[in-house]
Amino acid sequence: MQPEKAPQIMPQNKQQTTNRIGLFGFGTVGESLYKVLGETPSLKTKIVRIAIRHPEKKRSAPASLFTVDADLLLQDESINIIIELIDDADAAFEIVRKALRAGKAVVSANKKMIASHLEELLQIQQETGTPFLYEAAACASIPVIRNLEEYYDNDLLQGIQGIVNGSTNYILSRVSREGISFDEALIAAQLAGFAESDPSLDINGIDAVNKLSILLTHAYGIVSNPSSLVHTGIQALHEKDAVVAKEKRWEIKLVATARKLPSGKVAAWVLPQFIPQDHLLHAVRDEYNGVIIESGFSDEQFFYGKGAGGVATASAVLSDLSALRYGYRYEYKKRYHQEPSQLSHDFFIRVYVSFDGLFQVPHELFDRIEEWSSNDQRCAVTGIIHFSKLLDQQWWKRPGTSLILHPDPIVAHVPSRTSTLERDLAFA
Amino acid sequence: MQPEKAPQIMPQNKQQTTNRIGLFGFGTVGESLYKVLGETPSLKTKIVRIAIRHPEKKRSAPASLFTVDADLLLQDESINIIIELIDDADAAFEIVRKALRAGKAVVSANKKMIASHLEELLQIQQETGTPFLYEAAACASIPVIRNLEEYYDNDLLQGIQGIVNGSTNYILSRVSREGISFDEALIAAQLAGFAESDPSLDINGIDAVNKLSILLTHAYGIVSNPSSLVHTGIQALHEKDAVVAKEKRWEIKLVATARKLPSGKVAAWVLPQFIPQDHLLHAVRDEYNGVIIESGFSDEQFFYGKGAGGVATASAVLSDLSALRYGYRYEYKKRYHQEPSQLSHDFFIRVYVSFDGLFQVPHELFDRIEEWSSNDQRCAVTGIIHFSKLLDQQWWKRPGTSLILHPDPIVAHVPSRTSTLERDLAFA
Repeated sequence: MQPEKAPQIMPQNKQQTTNRIGLFGFGTVGESLYKVLGETPSLKTKIVRIAIRHPEKKRSAPASLFTVDADLLLQDESINIIIELIDDADAAFEIVRKALRAGKAVVSANKKMIASHLEELLQIQQETGTPFLYEAAACASIPVIRNLEEYYDNDLLQGIQGIVNGSTNYILSRVSREGISFDEALIAAQLAGFAESDPSLDINGIDAVNKLSILLTHAYGIVSNPSSLVHTGIQALHEKDAVVAKEKRWEIKLVATARKLPSGKVAAWVLPQFIPQDHLLHAVRDEYNGVIIESGFSDEQFFYGKGAGGVATASAVLSDLSALRYGYRYEYKKRYHQEPSQLSHDFFIRVYVSFDGLFQVPHELFDRIEEWSSNDQRCAVTGIIHFSKLLDQQWWKRPGTSLILHPDPIVAHVPSRTSTLERDLAFA
Repeated sequence: MQPEKAPQIMPQNKQQTTNRIGLFGFGTVGESLYKVLGETPSLKTKIVRIAIRHPEKKRSAPASLFTVDADLLLQDESINIIIELIDDADAAFEIVRKALRAGKAVVSANKKMIASHLEELLQIQQETGTPFLYEAAACASIPVIRNLEEYYDNDLLQGIQGIVNGSTNYILSRVSREGISFDEALIAAQLAGFAESDPSLDINGIDAVNKLSILLTHAYGIVSNPSSLVHTGIQALHEKDAVVAKEKRWEIKLVATARKLPSGKVAAWVLPQFIPQDHLLHAVRDEYNGVIIESGFSDEQFFYGKGAGGVATASAVLSDLSALRYGYRYEYKKRYHQEPSQLSHDFFIRVYVSFDGLFQVPHELFDRIEEWSSNDQRCAVTGIIHFSKLLDQQWWKRPGTSLILHPDPIVAHVPSRTSTLERDLAFA
């Protein structure tokens, strides 16, 4: 055999000089980060300027650092890294775009901005070759993005299941543990600082589906519009659903899922799901996040940590800064170096759906109905349904209806329609 | 302010050519790896030669790949990566040394070899600058080494607690769940393939302390001789200890711990420990491993996955190969870029010690005895003891004696010696 020339693995140059940072935003995360960088000179990273919107606010850093002029940061050649930690997704995108074009590495924690501009952000990175890291954008302190990128080859990655939103998990945990109502638990979450004063992004599953969209890119090379992914939050869950869960010793969790189907395509959704006690996600309590990565090669791996809050997010930003020191960037391997996977709606799932009123069950949508219960106010059905039926949200997202996946929801083989149960229901 | 010149963060060159691998050893791990690489052309990695010791064995790869001559791999300039997966630690070290000196990147899974040659391996890496990766050497499929190296700055890392040996955890799980004896559980572990036919390295805690030694280097920059770390395994655990654990609804686990003390120094050990139900390690069952990383910045993070077996190990080797594709190497940041931490024995711990016979309690070693029980055959004491007392292994490792840490074992403040209990014991 003729020896083929192989590349030598070259070591990295260590960067011994200090990284100089321009920081956008000085909320909880920005402030934590400023504090930690100041206390940790070993990181050789210094925040030299901070852009804010409200100069009149009192800040816990020298006034000379602050400016309202973004260009003072973006055009400062002494700044080599921009950290973007602002709320406004559109303004954030502008900052990131300009910074990358100016050759500055960027670190961001803005899942909404990243999820809704993924395509353009990939494009800019391709053109500029400048690193853009955002570990904090999914599961905050859990290093899931980088581990998906580096550890789990597309061909081997069977699936991801994650509790990726701390606020909703906090609410669900309180409801399950203490039997309080969803409304009471939401107020508790707000008081504890785990939900925004406008919690709708969390509660309706938008935050979770933004994160799923980012994870899909690093897991499977899929770039999707988050709003096109089947998703909901916990807004429609009914007290009766909590009772049903308790009876079976299950908990209801809001789970983001991506799973490879036998066809090689990928199923993806964010939906409430019943989680039995022996399931790894059962242990994910309160504001914590947890992600299970299933690989054909190493079975299940479980990552668990704080998914919300200033310090957890700052921690992930810090790790990105650390990675920049050795020239790390996402390669988006699953997209560029491998054949990216494709999404599919062609599979069956087992769901529980509960309704206000007795005659609302759209049983014609089900391929098989397995359980059926009702009382004066509420009717619930468990059955098997083709996933594509969820693309029409009219029926399952209408007020008074809640949909919860069963544990292990994907159904491999659907038996032929059971005519007796169906007939019973038709006469119900 | 004069703008200081800051380095530009440069993107990596992607290596598009195929990596050519020389593999040492073709046991379970080597065979799994060969199979997966063959099935996954996207990895652009090809095994071109395999060195083995027993050419007469039947192999599941073409005969032309195999050789018994190590130099055929080490001197082959077309090979740019050596993967070392052999049992013999001394032979393995020779291979790694030669390969690194020949400018070949090396991936190894040999914890014993790495732990006992850490100092020299660091030295060679410093001299040659050639990458040497060994994610598989600690917790197999859990990417703990790289995450410690990249994610947790020394200044912020409060501690690590891990179940790092799958065989002993399998045995302890079976004992706890089924109430069988330790001996029966060991046989079950051997039958299930989770323990070697000579299981002493696992059972006596040697494997776990080798892994702890590697983790200490990446967590705190500490290079220690594993045999100098306080450690034991599960060999001395008594059926009565299992009963005591069950009564309190605890489980006994073999836990490797590194924890920053208030002094800034680091406590480290491998010892059996009582784990209550609400502890994250309680969920680590059977042959699985789990590691809790506590950071001052992001609280607890928990990593969970298979810690033993061919595929879990091959999975970690695969991730190292993937990392080599972007020129990754361990920087040993905690050692070279930060002030490395130091080990300390100057702290108090709460331990349970049980003895064969009634008059064996060395109560003079305890600063405080809190509980005491005995029956005809066995006597047990719970108390607070200075950790340095464990450096003398004569008393706690003698036959018939078992020592188990309490949950949350480090004691911040030790009250003055309780003379009454002491007096009682003296008269017992």
